[in-house]
Amino acid sequence: MFEFHIAAKNGRARAGTFTTPHGDLLTPVFAPVGTQATVKTLTPPQLDGVGASLVLSNTYHLYLRPGDDLVRDMGGLHQFMQWPHPMLTDSGGFQVFSLSKTRKIDDDGVTFKSHIDGSTHRFTPEKSISIQENLGADIIMAFDECSDPNDHAYTALAMRRTHLWAERSLRAKTRADQALFGIIQGGVNPDLRVESTRFIASLDTPGIAIGGLSVGETKDEMYSTLDVIGAHLPSDRPRYLMGVGTPEDLIQGIARGVDIFDCVLPTRLARHHAAFSPEGRLNLMNATFARDPRPIDSTCDCYTCRTFTRAYLRHLISAKELLAGTLLSIHNLRALIRLVADMRLCILDGTFASRVPLWLEQWRGNAERTEKGMVSSE
Amino acid sequence: MFEFHIAAKNGRARAGTFTTPHGDLLTPVFAPVGTQATVKTLTPPQLDGVGASLVLSNTYHLYLRPGDDLVRDMGGLHQFMQWPHPMLTDSGGFQVFSLSKTRKIDDDGVTFKSHIDGSTHRFTPEKSISIQENLGADIIMAFDECSDPNDHAYTALAMRRTHLWAERSLRAKTRADQALFGIIQGGVNPDLRVESTRFIASLDTPGIAIGGLSVGETKDEMYSTLDVIGAHLPSDRPRYLMGVGTPEDLIQGIARGVDIFDCVLPTRLARHHAAFSPEGRLNLMNATFARDPRPIDSTCDCYTCRTFTRAYLRHLISAKELLAGTLLSIHNLRALIRLVADMRLCILDGTFASRVPLWLEQWRGNAERTEKGMVSSE
Repeated sequence: MFEFHIAAKNGRARAGTFTTPHGDLLTPVFAPVGTQATVKTLTPPQLDGVGASLVLSNTYHLYLRPGDDLVRDMGGLHQFMQWPHPMLTDSGGFQVFSLSKTRKIDDDGVTFKSHIDGSTHRFTPEKSISIQENLGADIIMAFDECSDPNDHAYTALAMRRTHLWAERSLRAKTRADQALFGIIQGGVNPDLRVESTRFIASLDTPGIAIGGLSVGETKDEMYSTLDVIGAHLPSDRPRYLMGVGTPEDLIQGIARGVDIFDCVLPTRLARHHAAFSPEGRLNLMNATFARDPRPIDSTCDCYTCRTFTRAYLRHLISAKELLAGTLLSIHNLRALIRLVADMRLCILDGTFASRVPLWLEQWRGNAERTEKGMVSSE
Repeated sequence: MFEFHIAAKNGRARAGTFTTPHGDLLTPVFAPVGTQATVKTLTPPQLDGVGASLVLSNTYHLYLRPGDDLVRDMGGLHQFMQWPHPMLTDSGGFQVFSLSKTRKIDDDGVTFKSHIDGSTHRFTPEKSISIQENLGADIIMAFDECSDPNDHAYTALAMRRTHLWAERSLRAKTRADQALFGIIQGGVNPDLRVESTRFIASLDTPGIAIGGLSVGETKDEMYSTLDVIGAHLPSDRPRYLMGVGTPEDLIQGIARGVDIFDCVLPTRLARHHAAFSPEGRLNLMNATFARDPRPIDSTCDCYTCRTFTRAYLRHLISAKELLAGTLLSIHNLRALIRLVADMRLCILDGTFASRVPLWLEQWRGNAERTEKGMVSSE
């Protein structure tokens, strides 16, 4: 279990297979986010229809509601939300630290107040692993501290705490059917990133996560940080870049050897009427689409593009119909999953590196990020 | 086209087939409501999955947004919302008259203000038919006035106006591929209902609608009014009871010879966390369901009941996840469509009348109505 086989490389990009108890993941892979045990507005068959293979869910949110013991008693997360394919949970660290006004960090863990009812709770590495074992995802994360990338002094402290917590997370783990990934921190400081990469890589884990990116640094800082990390990472384990990203970030990340991504962007944009397209990001609320008989993207093979006009989608949005969010989520998820699948094929046939400029040009108008979710329910 | 063939009768209940340009309707039939060219939260394949065969949409709402000329230019309502099966539009009368504070009625038509932006508009029988011809449903309605059932003097006046408007609607109609139904009014006054039934039945239409019920009268008044109408209706045309109903109303209506029903109840209840079940109407927000591993209804064949626990649905509701509305809509629609389909089979095999008490007992706890939608978007 949890074997990683690299079928082909093209430059630093890799096409591989990661074996999990719920099936093989073909990497690189983009994971939709199902924060509260549901990828917002979509049924499992609709998720299957966009080609999703890995779904992420959030430890912080499920711990608070409905409670990880309840999920365990209902047969675990796969059974609870009826997702039969691989799943991943984060450690809760990112959400807890984003509660900056109500949390207190010490070397043992973090005390915080629920964003739902203000009640007080405490996460430690042991507690995070216990919750994630109750949830039962295939891939789970060590408890980490994600610090402000612009506070370099504090970043060193948070990174060292993250390393100690990674060791405690590993010791706390009891289930053999879950792969625990350590998380590299260190902000945008190359020295810290090298130190963190070496430390996390030294742990006996089937995969390695890269945290603390896409949290306010520039795109150049993110890509150069990925370069630094990449130079010190072992090549035999899958690499997961957490909370990333835009189409451009996926292209740049895969070119730098990243294997796994997740991001709320496609589903969040969908609920704000925005759609990825080769013409750039479209806001379908715009009156120019009122009588547009074309699909969002005539080259897209998703259900929404095969079925509905921009005029209909614009009507649904204008009439505040919830179906708009469903149909745009289907399109946006499919767009990213298809882009990543295309890149995988090109890694396999050796054309990846030469096609990177083309993809970057094609997705240029879709590059901007939106602010990360912090404790919001997505 | 628009032939009605009655395959079997059992008491006054009938099982038939009504031929439309978009396929045969097997009657009795329950139509989900797609007010704004979408049955709220559901894709067309999900609607297909619950066994829907006829979908209703609203003239008033589509006239205001996105505009009937736009729908026509996009190929008509079937094409616009991608529903390939039969459709029905109402005349806009019910919504316009429910705008009681902002509308003025005269013998020629009604002037009213939009609930969206307060702009002034005017509907006449000719205008309603013109809009419905632009929308292009298979079954369309004459423009009518639905009056307060408790104001008997005014009800007579409104009924006579409805008759004149039915004649004008018929004269205004130009498309041969749409079936225009006249609408019987007359409140709960037996004399008026007899007069209206005779008048509307005398018109050359392929079907007959019954309006002005389930608008505030008691259930006994509704059922006895259906008895009065039924005694004077020709048996050779389909009968459509508008805006009805609850499971009990469907059973009582079919027992009184009604062939077509529509109601927002299943989808509206779904968005308010309520589900039809043989145990009575369940509010799935209730904490007693938090750890309930059963489906809503273990005898139900819908996607939701085949797939998810009450505990999961309760979690989605509690976490304000939109998927809850989708999954409960699927269940509630399937429950009514399956009930009507079961009744049709029993009419065909001659067991209908003997099973009525059983159905009434089984669905007893689901009988209460909610207030009708008036101008709300459902």
